[in-house]
Amino acid sequence: MKRFFSVEDVENVDVLVEEALQLKQNPLSKNDLGKGKTLGLVFLNSSLRTRMSTQKAAQNLGLNTIVLNANQEAWSWEFEDGAIMNNTTVEHIKDAANVLSQYCDIIGIRCFAGLTNKEEDTSEKVYSLFEKFATVPVISLESATLHPLQSLADCITIKENLPVNKKPKVVLSWAPHIKPLPHAVGNSFTQWMNQSDYDFVITHPEGLELDTQFTQGASIEHYQEKALENADFVYLKNWSSFRDYGKMPIVENDWMLTPEKLLTTNNAKIMHCLPVRRNVEVSDALLDSENALIYQQANNRTYAAQIVLQKILESNEKA
Amino acid sequence: MKRFFSVEDVENVDVLVEEALQLKQNPLSKNDLGKGKTLGLVFLNSSLRTRMSTQKAAQNLGLNTIVLNANQEAWSWEFEDGAIMNNTTVEHIKDAANVLSQYCDIIGIRCFAGLTNKEEDTSEKVYSLFEKFATVPVISLESATLHPLQSLADCITIKENLPVNKKPKVVLSWAPHIKPLPHAVGNSFTQWMNQSDYDFVITHPEGLELDTQFTQGASIEHYQEKALENADFVYLKNWSSFRDYGKMPIVENDWMLTPEKLLTTNNAKIMHCLPVRRNVEVSDALLDSENALIYQQANNRTYAAQIVLQKILESNEKA
Amino acid sequence: MKRFFSVEDVENVDVLVEEALQLKQNPLSKNDLGKGKTLGLVFLNSSLRTRMSTQKAAQNLGLNTIVLNANQEAWSWEFEDGAIMNNTTVEHIKDAANVLSQYCDIIGIRCFAGLTNKEEDTSEKVYSLFEKFATVPVISLESATLHPLQSLADCITIKENLPVNKKPKVVLSWAPHIKPLPHAVGNSFTQWMNQSDYDFVITHPEGLELDTQFTQGASIEHYQEKALENADFVYLKNWSSFRDYGKMPIVENDWMLTPEKLLTTNNAKIMHCLPVRRNVEVSDALLDSENALIYQQANNRTYAAQIVLQKILESNEKA
Repeated sequence: MKRFFSVEDVENVDVLVEEALQLKQNPLSKNDLGKGKTLGLVFLNSSLRTRMSTQKAAQNLGLNTIVLNANQEAWSWEFEDGAIMNNTTVEHIKDAANVLSQYCDIIGIRCFAGLTNKEEDTSEKVYSLFEKFATVPVISLESATLHPLQSLADCITIKENLPVNKKPKVVLSWAPHIKPLPHAVGNSFTQWMNQSDYDFVITHPEGLELDTQFTQGASIEHYQEKALENADFVYLKNWSSFRDYGKMPIVENDWMLTPEKLLTTNNAKIMHCLPVRRNVEVSDALLDSENALIYQQANNRTYAAQIVLQKILESNEKA
Repeated sequence: MKRFFSVEDVENVDVLVEEALQLKQNPLSKNDLGKGKTLGLVFLNSSLRTRMSTQKAAQNLGLNTIVLNANQEAWSWEFEDGAIMNNTTVEHIKDAANVLSQYCDIIGIRCFAGLTNKEEDTSEKVYSLFEKFATVPVISLESATLHPLQSLADCITIKENLPVNKKPKVVLSWAPHIKPLPHAVGNSFTQWMNQSDYDFVITHPEGLELDTQFTQGASIEHYQEKALENADFVYLKNWSSFRDYGKMPIVENDWMLTPEKLLTTNNAKIMHCLPVRRNVEVSDALLDSENALIYQQANNRTYAAQIVLQKILESNEKA
Repeated sequence: MKRFFSVEDVENVDVLVEEALQLKQNPLSKNDLGKGKTLGLVFLNSSLRTRMSTQKAAQNLGLNTIVLNANQEAWSWEFEDGAIMNNTTVEHIKDAANVLSQYCDIIGIRCFAGLTNKEEDTSEKVYSLFEKFATVPVISLESATLHPLQSLADCITIKENLPVNKKPKVVLSWAPHIKPLPHAVGNSFTQWMNQSDYDFVITHPEGLELDTQFTQGASIEHYQEKALENADFVYLKNWSSFRDYGKMPIVENDWMLTPEKLLTTNNAKIMHCLPVRRNVEVSDALLDSENALIYQQANNRTYAAQIVLQKILESNEKA
């Protein structure tokens, strides 16, 4: 593996999930692989799970980590090619990416969607520029449109909880929130589910369609109740409008997931990438129930990051 | 040891101090104990000594450390059980504690008193919730009411400076400050001194009584001059009113410690947990004198943290 | 080496550069030298290159690193001796330096010029006080007047790019900027060049003279065009007025370096410490050309830091 930006960088999702599960059995088995090498983690946005799990993964591989909170600790970045930098930005992303590559063998970067400029977000302007100018492998710690480490952890978690003798039905359900959120987790989960042979359904209010470049082939059902029937896994996630970009259309029905809504499911497991707005997106009764897989998902973030870092290190070694 | 929140989590203070002193002689003697394990340090407030000394202690044990400045780097936390999270808090402490436990073998957390809600501070709302939901051992890096790593370092420092052939007299003296401060250091030092067989006296202006749940059994003397007589150690620390919670009553007399006030002591050693407001709490003449133990206290923070981490790691190993 | 504040702390620049180049061939050759030891990196200002390269250097030496963003994570410092600390500063630099020395074997500190008080900056008030009160070796991560790790990296880079059979001509050229900047990089590069046997010329608009204590002996040429003739290296850097301290005098001519200006040079290499204001200080056409050494300079920051840390560790070992 030379990069990790989306599911398209994975040769075979099933095999990667299986390898992650093996590694989870013995996390320190390749504790020397990263010796003398450095992972740079660059955050343009807040992070708890990604920050912690990726550091933990690196430690398990004997890889040194240097964290950079780019906006707080370093300099604000210019993204325009050819810009006359006579304003507030202090360093061009071209220089930052090139320079960070001098100190790191792998760089992870987090750069959320700004939700104000659809074209910039959709084209992954920040991530693409960073990767273009970096001279070492880059992995996404969540970009404007995708969150592949989360999706890989989600796939690992589903694999650990497969129903017996049944093709699993996985539902991605839009959930209410109080402010407009990016589409990355929804897009990304859809992408990875499209690679599986699970029965996958997305449910969301009309007007809240995800970008079709990620949903292609996925079933979409606007009635949450109908979508939930016989579900084995329900993944809750809010996102803002893609069509009316970054806006929050008024949603009439109550989309919060509650125990009542679970009655028609196959005693479905509840998934969320966290942080979750409790009793807004999902009720406490579900999040605190045995059906919730949320902490197992968080736990699997370590092994998702670790298998990706391992693949990149091994691929570099061969090169 | 399964947790470290207060002196009550210590089986025998004398033995723990003695073990810390032995470890100080050879800090790298158990450099493999933490191998492959991770300490998470979560700061909801500023920190210099605790941040540095605990990382140093972890390094001495071969334990990896991941630092999280929770408010700056991650998400603001919700503390209310059952809250409908439709406001500014982004992640419930329940989820944060559970998630951090997925990546860490031990978690240290710093959460100062807010000094606005007496009941919340006194009940250790934040610390208790965090510990309740964490699934790994938690240690206090200073909570609303106590600062046990500081007190353990203070006990180590006193042990290293015991007067010869004399039962030591230790005085905890309230000191002036320009803004209301928490009671944690005062409460905690009192708790640990109450476990010793030293002659221990607290002196403070009337109206500035500490919480009796911590002072119980300790001598209180409102005349600083009288309290200082024949003292071997004077520990200076400001705290705000506990009765009129978080307020600063007008204090008429000058409580700043000066060389003149030391004349009736037994050439007392000067202690302070730092940071210290020089020439407000204590005069430069004392802080810069040979009597000051302030840097030795800071140094012993490493061994206090290290012996606690060691005990928890060893206790986990047995489990 | 016992400290690293300026070129004056280096016995022989040529030898140090040569040793750094050897170490670059085999960066992990002394991977055990720092075992069990701790480097503290204290930032009072932003940092990317210094932050990353010094951590990388420490890792290469097996040295643990603890980073402290002093203003964000700890307490604001008091610098006045004898101050009655009844205002906004919370901890005296005396105490901070002494305390940090309890946890670290070497401390690096970054403290930029404030550009408002010439005397304070020129006397290196902050750095001097920190070093005075620290009880372990201190290295500069850029102080008010000097940036020696940058200059050492610059010397390494020049050595790697020497013209054949020609005494190299090195030009330090003032470059335009949109806000007043410190003099540290300009002063420091001048200091190190004055130790070399290169042909060294400084060019800047009249009124923008650097402090003569650093320029002494260096040629100064106010016509950029004339200075550039036959140059092998052109180092671009902005600084504000030293005479009219911290101000930006109006500069009539266009001092931005462009390809046209390079025509009279000996196909000069372009150097800049970064971050660079593209198309203000230097044009993209040069920064993105093969003549640019900017990323090589950034890369050599690691080996500059590593050879300095190595010298200090070795010197401590002997002691």
